[in-house]
Amino acid sequence: MLYLIGLGLGDAKDITVKGLEVVRRCSRVYLEAYTSVLTVGKEALEEFYGRKLVVADREEVEQEADNILKDAVISDVAFLVVGDPFGATTHSDLVLRATKLGIPYRVIHNASIMNAVGCCGLQLYKFGETVSIVFWTDTWRPESFVDKVKKNRQNGMHTLCLLDIKVKEQSLENLIKGRKIYEPPRYMSVNQAAQQLLEIVQNQRIRGEEPAVTEETLCVGLARVGADDQKIVAGTLRQMCTVDLGEPLHSLIITGGSIHPMEMEMLSLFSIPENSSESQSINGL
Amino acid sequence: MLYLIGLGLGDAKDITVKGLEVVRRCSRVYLEAYTSVLTVGKEALEEFYGRKLVVADREEVEQEADNILKDAVISDVAFLVVGDPFGATTHSDLVLRATKLGIPYRVIHNASIMNAVGCCGLQLYKFGETVSIVFWTDTWRPESFVDKVKKNRQNGMHTLCLLDIKVKEQSLENLIKGRKIYEPPRYMSVNQAAQQLLEIVQNQRIRGEEPAVTEETLCVGLARVGADDQKIVAGTLRQMCTVDLGEPLHSLIITGGSIHPMEMEMLSLFSIPENSSESQSINGL
Repeated sequence: MLYLIGLGLGDAKDITVKGLEVVRRCSRVYLEAYTSVLTVGKEALEEFYGRKLVVADREEVEQEADNILKDAVISDVAFLVVGDPFGATTHSDLVLRATKLGIPYRVIHNASIMNAVGCCGLQLYKFGETVSIVFWTDTWRPESFVDKVKKNRQNGMHTLCLLDIKVKEQSLENLIKGRKIYEPPRYMSVNQAAQQLLEIVQNQRIRGEEPAVTEETLCVGLARVGADDQKIVAGTLRQMCTVDLGEPLHSLIITGGSIHPMEMEMLSLFSIPENSSESQSINGL
Repeated sequence: MLYLIGLGLGDAKDITVKGLEVVRRCSRVYLEAYTSVLTVGKEALEEFYGRKLVVADREEVEQEADNILKDAVISDVAFLVVGDPFGATTHSDLVLRATKLGIPYRVIHNASIMNAVGCCGLQLYKFGETVSIVFWTDTWRPESFVDKVKKNRQNGMHTLCLLDIKVKEQSLENLIKGRKIYEPPRYMSVNQAAQQLLEIVQNQRIRGEEPAVTEETLCVGLARVGADDQKIVAGTLRQMCTVDLGEPLHSLIITGGSIHPMEMEMLSLFSIPENSSESQSINGL
């Protein structure tokens, strides 16, 4: 049996009781380590689970799926995923490959950023299409995701923006020379995402287009959702450019046009205080 | 401290390790029992948690929130919610009331139907607005939710339909006479939801409107997601009218227009077999 087990979002203890029982009895346990991170490292998980974990990066999961699935017809293999196995990133490929090999599978669900963002008070059923905001490079500066934000807002829907994660990246030089030397991991902050959004808005204005959002659009910045030190702030997109949310992972929500009074009251719990460095407070909240 | 703790979707062991630790040390533990159910009852939860649970129905949470929050400034109170506390139903009202009373709160997240439906292979980021389908009465037959389905489909988005739950309902007679006698709980099945949808489609055709969906629209029926005996079927809306998904809770997904090949391959794992009572198979999957 292949078990796909969600680890939730905070630390080692966010696994479910059922998930922990399975981890402890599987013959091999893999940890997917390229789409998200917990606030604790592999060692803390190993200590709490009482099991050695094999870290599987994107390359390995794609190229060595057969190794992961080896003997899973006769033994139990666990594949651990931060959040939920079918959350922001689906692991359909592994499931399909297992099925073709005649290996049964089972999913043990957990919270993912896709549903845990509800903690800011915005209603989950009012979220439209989720977008990803990627790190720009000198030559690749995609802007098209804002069309989805625009469409969501036109329909009164909020937009969850998942922010880029770069893990096990090679510099162009190392890539060309075939050197397996990796850059330090990078996680996009809410500041970076907001600044990029405002740059796109500027470009839209220059082109004479109706901008998808403005500096004053109400947004929510979230960091380390589910962890003890999670941080949520509600404020304008302009404020999101400078607010300090601390360590990764960050997510950004761009609110839809119409906000329910109950949503607004919840957001007011997280509004940026007036005496912050940003003088533009959201007192209207 | 007020703890809002998600129980996940299956049985007693779907609580997180962190959630279980908190439940075991709180001075009072409430179980919210009106928006969803697990496949096990209160007694099974009490046995596994080792704690007595106070069942809180909608009336109590709304009218007796102060009792729930009593002494929570100096002691720990847990409020347990099937799924996630900010999933399909938010418990913002309780959080806001606690905050006004100066009671700190903490959310312990878990899977909810809002993210666990990803297990069918449809990508969560491609879901649009979530709709609720309610039991029709002789005098109240709302149809407007299909406009949201239509809009989602026009934007290529899938629609999660949450199906009605009637718990602790009074008959009109008992309500008028003030008798606290309650009807047996009712849970809408995928069959009922699909039949209702097709009736609305018929009405739209009679009125000369473009129908939101057709008999052939590809849908996914899900039952008891996260439980050992969960069932997922992919097929046409017509097939959803008769497919047998067994016990509650059920959910229905209406797919958006464009389906990614990987989504389609996953759905094919759940397609209704050709030799089923419905001769219209979805071989194209």
